[in-house]
Amino acid sequence: MRSQRSWADGIEAGEASRERAGDGRAGGQSWIDRWCLARLAAELAGAAIVVRLWNGLSVALSDRPPVASVLIGDRGTLLRLVFQPELEFGEAYTAGRLEVQGDLTRLFETANRAMAAHERPAWRGWIAHLLTGASLSAARRNVHHHYDLGNDFYRRWLDEAMVYTCAYFERPDAALEEAQRAKLEYVCRKLRLQPGDEVVEAGCGWGALALHMAREHGARVRAFNISHEQLAYARARAVREGLTDRVTFIDGDYRTIEGRCDAFVSVGMLEHVGPRQYRALGEVVARVLDRERGRGLLHFIGRSVPRPFNAWTERYIFPGAYAPTLGEVTPDLFERTGLSVFDVENLRLHYASTLEHWQHRFEQQAESVRERFDEAFVRTWRMYLASARAGFMTGDLQLFQITFGRGTEEAAPGTRRALYE
Amino acid sequence: MRSQRSWADGIEAGEASRERAGDGRAGGQSWIDRWCLARLAAELAGAAIVVRLWNGLSVALSDRPPVASVLIGDRGTLLRLVFQPELEFGEAYTAGRLEVQGDLTRLFETANRAMAAHERPAWRGWIAHLLTGASLSAARRNVHHHYDLGNDFYRRWLDEAMVYTCAYFERPDAALEEAQRAKLEYVCRKLRLQPGDEVVEAGCGWGALALHMAREHGARVRAFNISHEQLAYARARAVREGLTDRVTFIDGDYRTIEGRCDAFVSVGMLEHVGPRQYRALGEVVARVLDRERGRGLLHFIGRSVPRPFNAWTERYIFPGAYAPTLGEVTPDLFERTGLSVFDVENLRLHYASTLEHWQHRFEQQAESVRERFDEAFVRTWRMYLASARAGFMTGDLQLFQITFGRGTEEAAPGTRRALYE
Repeated sequence: MRSQRSWADGIEAGEASRERAGDGRAGGQSWIDRWCLARLAAELAGAAIVVRLWNGLSVALSDRPPVASVLIGDRGTLLRLVFQPELEFGEAYTAGRLEVQGDLTRLFETANRAMAAHERPAWRGWIAHLLTGASLSAARRNVHHHYDLGNDFYRRWLDEAMVYTCAYFERPDAALEEAQRAKLEYVCRKLRLQPGDEVVEAGCGWGALALHMAREHGARVRAFNISHEQLAYARARAVREGLTDRVTFIDGDYRTIEGRCDAFVSVGMLEHVGPRQYRALGEVVARVLDRERGRGLLHFIGRSVPRPFNAWTERYIFPGAYAPTLGEVTPDLFERTGLSVFDVENLRLHYASTLEHWQHRFEQQAESVRERFDEAFVRTWRMYLASARAGFMTGDLQLFQITFGRGTEEAAPGTRRALYE
Repeated sequence: MRSQRSWADGIEAGEASRERAGDGRAGGQSWIDRWCLARLAAELAGAAIVVRLWNGLSVALSDRPPVASVLIGDRGTLLRLVFQPELEFGEAYTAGRLEVQGDLTRLFETANRAMAAHERPAWRGWIAHLLTGASLSAARRNVHHHYDLGNDFYRRWLDEAMVYTCAYFERPDAALEEAQRAKLEYVCRKLRLQPGDEVVEAGCGWGALALHMAREHGARVRAFNISHEQLAYARARAVREGLTDRVTFIDGDYRTIEGRCDAFVSVGMLEHVGPRQYRALGEVVARVLDRERGRGLLHFIGRSVPRPFNAWTERYIFPGAYAPTLGEVTPDLFERTGLSVFDVENLRLHYASTLEHWQHRFEQQAESVRERFDEAFVRTWRMYLASARAGFMTGDLQLFQITFGRGTEEAAPGTRRALYE
């Protein structure tokens, strides 16, 4: 990795002659390089980015002061960037064939905004998705699987309660611990939890919400998960907190949920369910929710426009995941079974803040993560956190909290004021 | 009308012999009557209603104390009730061939709940819709057209600002005037109106919201409407309040809207747009909204399950109207043009309260309305207000407020706390 960086250091130090694309004075510059730079410049016109090549060619994508420079190490990388930009940017960055000088998050932010201004047809994202999907099973074997990385890895940089979903910042400058606690409490308030309520949680992570509902609200919780490592961690916490009589952590996915409950909650699971299974999930929810008092909350990463995750994220971060629009979610999950939507809140800026905290904590641990894994792993996570944060900042990604319940329930919320008192 | 009531008075006074359906002792009772009663009893099993016929036959639809009795005046009415219940109930009630003893709203409420418990297939509503639709143009000629009834009629029983949409009850016991003012203010807060903001309002009624936005928030408003009588009223108010420099009332529907605005708002219009036009409306919104700051609010009667208005309401109250689900609205209105949904609030219980106020005020004016129109008109409105209130109480109808905006706008709301301070 170190040796691969040297070319970038060279560009940065001005060793190669710098010129505008098209001047073509420096040695080793081909018409191919200039054509590729021109394509990138057209694709991202308006982004406050400078692109520099290994051979000294460079182009500024806008007249504004750049937020970052992208240094491209070889012609193969440049060509792949033109033809498979989503995938190649991440792969080249991870491998060190491409370097970023400046703020990685702001780079994605300005690139997102530039692309959004161009109003490209949506089919381009789907083509990239199909190209990626074809090689997905091979990719899965090659990547560190996202949720199999071990509790120790996440404990390094998540909050103390190990909440790996969007926090809720009552104040913009709240600490991450406070914002995650506020999120757990906000979810409970939206559910209008009462002592003794029977709650089902689908996809419980390390158990923070389930334990909070039992401890702070006296709920009786059955929390489902398919990750054995997370379940072991959650069960140990339940024992330590003396909550085993009120919280049961169950090894099983949402399709195995039986019985009845007063409230159904799922935070950060829907992204992994997949649109073809929304109908099955909706039937589970309708089956388990109490006929009179039943209400629920879904919290998930969504979109304003139907579109897959970008190819790199889908291959290396969340294979098989999908962030749906409201229009993709509500028919199968609620309307088919007659559940009423009470409230939808879009918390995307809160996820941008959450990711900013995670970035900061992750960088503080980067050295030890590099020792435990490797440099490519650190760069993969650095890119994932930065691109996700930029996505939430620019509105490429949304975070929806949907509160719903039985249509016949007269206890539908009166006003939302109590949420904020 | 008076003479038609006498049969009901007779039943009520116990002049006909009362028995359970099937006993068949009283004279003039046919197996047809008993079969019809059995059908109604099966259809509405569990509703706290007693049905009595002109000939003394009767049936209780549940074991609970009845909230109301339905008195049916002749065999033709009974037969039509079995085969076209939605339409015939209203037509017979309006004509006085059917009487209700007890609370009309609670009658609809218990009937709604009983029907919801049966989980009938949705196609039944659509069949009734098609049967009604076929005769719609004839019906339109025959009815007092809803919005052509004259300002004087609505002034009798609406609040002083003439707001003919769902109010917002910050306290359950707020007066109607206070709740309508609170709704106007709530809409402005959700839009985060600033002095000088350019606002487009589509479907402005008698102008209350447009004038409020200009007067209280310094907005510059262009408000569109196609009702000349409403426009004349609204313009006179703008003159009286000295707001003509900031509010322009424009004769035109939403498709004629041109120019740009910071905020787009429409309260109670979408129900009359029709699903086939959502795409056109979405394009208008996307075209006029400012590229950076643009945000908007839609307020409309909706559904949890796709279903037409009931046949009677569609024929006599709102010809051509449709209350959509969120899944029917969001793809064409927002997702096609890349607008982000910030917030959805379901205010159905507020509409139930609003209608309760309207019922009370309408009944206080019933005598003068009867003089101006006729008894059938009074009964049509009585039935409409009661069935709508029951619909919102039982979750058959919803009231959605959707706040939305440009996806690229970083000023997406942080928290909703400011709405409640």
